[in-house]
Amino acid sequence: MSQFDNVSVVRQANVYFGGNVTSRVVLFADGTKKTLGIMMPGEYEFGADDKEVMEILSGHLKVLLPGKTEWLEINGIGVFTVPANTKFKLVVTTVTDYCCSYIAE
Amino acid sequence: MSQFDNVSVVRQANVYFGGNVTSRVVLFADGTKKTLGIMMPGEYEFGADDKEVMEILSGHLKVLLPGKTEWLEINGIGVFTVPANTKFKLVVTTVTDYCCSYIAE
Repeated sequence: MSQFDNVSVVRQANVYFGGNVTSRVVLFADGTKKTLGIMMPGEYEFGADDKEVMEILSGHLKVLLPGKTEWLEINGIGVFTVPANTKFKLVVTTVTDYCCSYIAE
Repeated sequence: MSQFDNVSVVRQANVYFGGNVTSRVVLFADGTKKTLGIMMPGEYEFGADDKEVMEILSGHLKVLLPGKTEWLEINGIGVFTVPANTKFKLVVTTVTDYCCSYIAE
């Protein structure tokens, strides 16, 4: 059972797209931040202010990364990186559990 | 910004009702456990093994507690307690953010 230890968790959820995407902020002692989130099936476009490393813990989705023309499909587990100050699109087919790391550059 | 400090968080979400209810486990140094969760609109029945204190952080729902005939309505924030080894029903009208505390007796 993978877990984050010695962290802080913000109680209130982040709610996007009418609740179809929600997440909780996890704060680490070194000042870094991750979110643990759920995406319901749907189509979404997100903006990344910081560089983001999106780890898919479970789910089925495809992602169109900035500057790409081919969609990346993830079925089960997977990871992709989003450059800072870009947008990316997601088509989520099944309930998707994710962990997003925000990387200050 | 209310947060839990010095805790562990299980990465993988708990997923119920096809993802319409999801939660993350937060573990405290004293051995106690809470979950932070999201309920999408819908009707649900839950079983409580331990005594549960359900704090609604935001949302609109009504709850039928065990042995009751009148529904308790919560719009915004609220709290209700569920005895151990009982079932309770929820009708969730809007996306609901909650914190559930499990009380060993």
